[in-house]
Amino acid sequence: MASLMLHPDRALPAEPTTRGLARRIYDETAQLPIVGMHGHVEAQILADDAPFGDPAALLVTPDHYVTRMLYSQGVEPYRLGVRAAGDPEVAPREIWRTFCSHWPLFRGTPSRYWLEHELVEVFGVSSVPSPETADELFDAITSVLESPYFRPRALLDRFGIELIATTDPATSQLEHHAKLAADGLGERVVPTFRPDALTHLNRPTWVADVAELGRVAGHDTGSYEGYLAALRQRREAFIAAGALATDHGHLSTDTTRLSVEQAAAIYRDALQGTASAEAGHAFAGHMLHVMAGMSAEDGLVMQLHPGVLRDHHTASFDAYGPDRGWDIPVPTEYTRSLRPLLESYGMTPGFRLILFTVDETTYSRELAPIAGVYPSVRLGAPWWFLDSPHAMRRFREAATETAGFYNTSGFVDDTRAFASIPARHDLSRRIDAGYLGTLVAEHRLSEQEAVETAIDLAYTLPKAAYARR
Amino acid sequence: MASLMLHPDRALPAEPTTRGLARRIYDETAQLPIVGMHGHVEAQILADDAPFGDPAALLVTPDHYVTRMLYSQGVEPYRLGVRAAGDPEVAPREIWRTFCSHWPLFRGTPSRYWLEHELVEVFGVSSVPSPETADELFDAITSVLESPYFRPRALLDRFGIELIATTDPATSQLEHHAKLAADGLGERVVPTFRPDALTHLNRPTWVADVAELGRVAGHDTGSYEGYLAALRQRREAFIAAGALATDHGHLSTDTTRLSVEQAAAIYRDALQGTASAEAGHAFAGHMLHVMAGMSAEDGLVMQLHPGVLRDHHTASFDAYGPDRGWDIPVPTEYTRSLRPLLESYGMTPGFRLILFTVDETTYSRELAPIAGVYPSVRLGAPWWFLDSPHAMRRFREAATETAGFYNTSGFVDDTRAFASIPARHDLSRRIDAGYLGTLVAEHRLSEQEAVETAIDLAYTLPKAAYARR
Amino acid sequence: MASLMLHPDRALPAEPTTRGLARRIYDETAQLPIVGMHGHVEAQILADDAPFGDPAALLVTPDHYVTRMLYSQGVEPYRLGVRAAGDPEVAPREIWRTFCSHWPLFRGTPSRYWLEHELVEVFGVSSVPSPETADELFDAITSVLESPYFRPRALLDRFGIELIATTDPATSQLEHHAKLAADGLGERVVPTFRPDALTHLNRPTWVADVAELGRVAGHDTGSYEGYLAALRQRREAFIAAGALATDHGHLSTDTTRLSVEQAAAIYRDALQGTASAEAGHAFAGHMLHVMAGMSAEDGLVMQLHPGVLRDHHTASFDAYGPDRGWDIPVPTEYTRSLRPLLESYGMTPGFRLILFTVDETTYSRELAPIAGVYPSVRLGAPWWFLDSPHAMRRFREAATETAGFYNTSGFVDDTRAFASIPARHDLSRRIDAGYLGTLVAEHRLSEQEAVETAIDLAYTLPKAAYARR
Repeated sequence: MASLMLHPDRALPAEPTTRGLARRIYDETAQLPIVGMHGHVEAQILADDAPFGDPAALLVTPDHYVTRMLYSQGVEPYRLGVRAAGDPEVAPREIWRTFCSHWPLFRGTPSRYWLEHELVEVFGVSSVPSPETADELFDAITSVLESPYFRPRALLDRFGIELIATTDPATSQLEHHAKLAADGLGERVVPTFRPDALTHLNRPTWVADVAELGRVAGHDTGSYEGYLAALRQRREAFIAAGALATDHGHLSTDTTRLSVEQAAAIYRDALQGTASAEAGHAFAGHMLHVMAGMSAEDGLVMQLHPGVLRDHHTASFDAYGPDRGWDIPVPTEYTRSLRPLLESYGMTPGFRLILFTVDETTYSRELAPIAGVYPSVRLGAPWWFLDSPHAMRRFREAATETAGFYNTSGFVDDTRAFASIPARHDLSRRIDAGYLGTLVAEHRLSEQEAVETAIDLAYTLPKAAYARR
Repeated sequence: MASLMLHPDRALPAEPTTRGLARRIYDETAQLPIVGMHGHVEAQILADDAPFGDPAALLVTPDHYVTRMLYSQGVEPYRLGVRAAGDPEVAPREIWRTFCSHWPLFRGTPSRYWLEHELVEVFGVSSVPSPETADELFDAITSVLESPYFRPRALLDRFGIELIATTDPATSQLEHHAKLAADGLGERVVPTFRPDALTHLNRPTWVADVAELGRVAGHDTGSYEGYLAALRQRREAFIAAGALATDHGHLSTDTTRLSVEQAAAIYRDALQGTASAEAGHAFAGHMLHVMAGMSAEDGLVMQLHPGVLRDHHTASFDAYGPDRGWDIPVPTEYTRSLRPLLESYGMTPGFRLILFTVDETTYSRELAPIAGVYPSVRLGAPWWFLDSPHAMRRFREAATETAGFYNTSGFVDDTRAFASIPARHDLSRRIDAGYLGTLVAEHRLSEQEAVETAIDLAYTLPKAAYARR
Repeated sequence: MASLMLHPDRALPAEPTTRGLARRIYDETAQLPIVGMHGHVEAQILADDAPFGDPAALLVTPDHYVTRMLYSQGVEPYRLGVRAAGDPEVAPREIWRTFCSHWPLFRGTPSRYWLEHELVEVFGVSSVPSPETADELFDAITSVLESPYFRPRALLDRFGIELIATTDPATSQLEHHAKLAADGLGERVVPTFRPDALTHLNRPTWVADVAELGRVAGHDTGSYEGYLAALRQRREAFIAAGALATDHGHLSTDTTRLSVEQAAAIYRDALQGTASAEAGHAFAGHMLHVMAGMSAEDGLVMQLHPGVLRDHHTASFDAYGPDRGWDIPVPTEYTRSLRPLLESYGMTPGFRLILFTVDETTYSRELAPIAGVYPSVRLGAPWWFLDSPHAMRRFREAATETAGFYNTSGFVDDTRAFASIPARHDLSRRIDAGYLGTLVAEHRLSEQEAVETAIDLAYTLPKAAYARR
């Protein structure tokens, strides 16, 4: 039976001189603390510090990278624990067997890399997943999950996580962060202010959400003015809870500012349910501009994650809900769309904007030229479908020559899968070491400079990029 | 005089460890049978089994990869045998001399690779084409072409072609396939249903084509209803003749469904010659959706080849006709355009859609994310201008990390040049071996897995992707 | 203190076999004369042959690659000598210190490569820029700049510049070129005809510019007809002064021809200041078509540099003027936009169009297919943000397989920084040698062919591409 082994030189370039350089560079970063400034681990997990569930509930059902690959080859969602009304419930062991029997599908994917790393480094198992090994792996992982050393807070230490940010709706009362603070973890686990539900006024839940905002913030959100005051109140509450950043997921990057009158009129219409789709788009773009202005005032770093058409398959969304794997990128434009925002705040010392993309055509054409001149802008790490070995290399190759290294944010993991955090940071450090090693091998950089840069990318830059202004 | 030689390691990565791995992986696929599921070799060539013509008629005049490169450097089409009314006729030997004297233009192109392979492996010659060697090569190839071992059917065996698909208009009566079937080749040479002439109702020949459809299918195509019935009849006739797939060449990938009333009204207008260009585009998109529905019923695999603006230079089209080298790609969008079709059939077990592109920006942004979740979708091999060493590597690097290997179709050659089929499959196998070898060298895959995957890409996956559902 | 050294194998691939090949190929091109067919060195510099200024005035203040990188990290423009009204004046030595203290920002950028090359090869210094070395470097460079061997004309010889083109407004009276001609340099330093100010009729200076055109050309530009006659006169004057080419910087590549009546009407409106923005865009596109027609007549090679949104940050433009680093590319389309022009002149033997881009997605999708069939078209070298090691490799990898090498222009440097010319040509020759070496190492090209091709790319092709037709 084949045995899982993590080769010490995995994901480093094959050419021996370059590999030697890359290994030495990587070695200087391998043990650095983890700074995870944009994640989707739930604060409650860390607040409650309860044991994780079974292997399927931890590693299969919630991981849309994994489930979408299995759907794509005809596995029905319910067999992975993703259930619509009326779907049969499948036992965790059975879900795990289904996953293991499809292991070859992950060849060449980052999921394979992350999962191998987790199985070996986190769970201490060494069998390659397969129909034959599924039960053995299930039992071994289950027993690890029962150990007190595998509680969420214990893993913070074991993983070397110095700082981790959660993502929280603007209406969150941050009670889990309060508990974490009470337990002395308030500066280690910080919230991130995410107002998307409140700025997209055509969403079915919007009227309820702004009402909730009014209640939580203690401002009457019956008017646009009150809505802005309520948003400001929530930002202050997040800052008080340790927040360093906001996060914005928009379909487009439009940032055209409306007049106060126009915005107020659209807002009024939306409360009546009569705002058009165009008005909704205009308002969302306007609010990006407004949020940038608030960031310039209160110093929260602004993150923009655009260009994903969510819930592409409506029937599957209706059956299974959001974030299940049916989100598909679209072409994204930055130069013209961001211009209004950058005209206002691009040169403002107190403002910081971190740009992400799933459209890698924009790296050399738009994003690196923008980040290479505007002091307020940094390029985020390759995101989502691009958080993978070849795509990370392409990012460095396409962005560095115009933006350099120091206009990038360093690594940001963006994961829901807590156990995969070390694997993701490790892979990123290896890819950057490989890229830097290539520059050294081609005599474009000294080895000492490469090591300094690698440390900056892994640790210094993420801390600096997300330092509240 | 320089001698043509095919190095056994050609097109494999230079780095010695990776090359060693790639060579071992390639060796396991080199002798696999050829499955050519999308080609433009004429069925009549195989039905008649007549000798091929002279070297110019076989290798120069019909190959738009070759002729366009020569035009681009000022060679007039008639000198290559591509003639407009009134153009002088040039002797085959003279055409061949012109070709040979421009051999350096092909440096770095796949044509160079394919032609070298053909000259050495198929025709057994070893002189590098040049003004000095042109006549010697012409004579040597001519003598091979006269041999009975070089008849089309003999080459099926010699090339190891297990299965080859032709491309046939929906109105074809498939008489050549009938002859092939009578000769025992019916399951080896299969037709492909191509209805483009019938779904693009602004083409000048459309009225005549739907009338012909009516005659051939025995349905009155005077109404939209009869038109659909006639198309269904032709699909059944193609299936009876062994067809496994349909093929659709559209400028855009729009798949918006019209109501039956709207479609019928446009159809009526088109018969009168009064349908607008917009109506024509809308109808073409609608018919992609309708054809997907028919595929979901009858199991023909649906191929979509979008994004090429045909006949870019009108005067050259008027002079020389279509497919002469003046087709130029345009930016292509998939996420929004395909959504209507995928909403309807993307999760339908009986439906299979194979997507091609000449816009490689869509690999990581749209195509891999789509194929990585929808079970009905597979990504076709790099097509046309992208069927080349670097472009094939870029495809694997951009698509694999999100779609894996098993959501791709494996190699599909798409050639009109019969003698180039082995060269094209060989090059693809080498490039895939190189990519897989890199994964092994970077410890992301075991060598055994790489060999399995290479065999799947070369042989198993094309057969599976095109298996009628 | 670290010492600057130029490794002989810098920017060549690391893999030893490929590096050996690349070094041998590069060695055959390293000493070839420089042909710089598109530059922004001012003719006056060469006409006056005055000493260059101080290190900051030569290497920092005017180089937007350098200044934009420093702005992006918060350095205020005035600290680099880029001043708005009321900004304090900073001493050259202080500017130089600021630059040196930010040296790490340039890691991985072409600026780093070019500047190292200049420091060592042109100025003969060997200290790595840093706060500690800034003064020493400033003094050493200052003393070189005072030497008569560093006068502009002396550098023409020292740099091996056989031919250099300047860029000159269409209204230029070319007095500096007249002086150069009188001094025997008329065929070595040639002007380039740039009519952008005259074809973009919504620019604030347009009315004054066409009046000036009328004066200089001796044609009444009060009518469209007179405007065309005046443009023709200037083209003839440029040709008489040795010009080989025109240059066109447009936001889009639209080339739709208007009727004479439409064009004349827009022209009339523009003189009155009543032309709309749409009319201005239409006129600019029309004039590209008209200019192509003039080139087909008078043989000036036409260069098109599209796709850059100039002066993205209005406040910075107002403060510091154009070309200061706030120009950002936009997605650019060629297939449909250029079609009108190519329908008219794409197959015209006397016409030559050289296409540049800062949108590298167009290489494989549009530009290589266009250049690979139209005899009038050549692809320019990677431009601006893409004139860098990785981007130049991507250009060859994406364009060669469809367009070959011989439909590219060879290297074109496009620089304002006179002292960087040898560095830029050297880097290009290294990257091409690396690409060709890879083809040889993969047995896709013989070494002899690679050497021939490298010489052509470095020297033969630029001369041929820009030979007046």
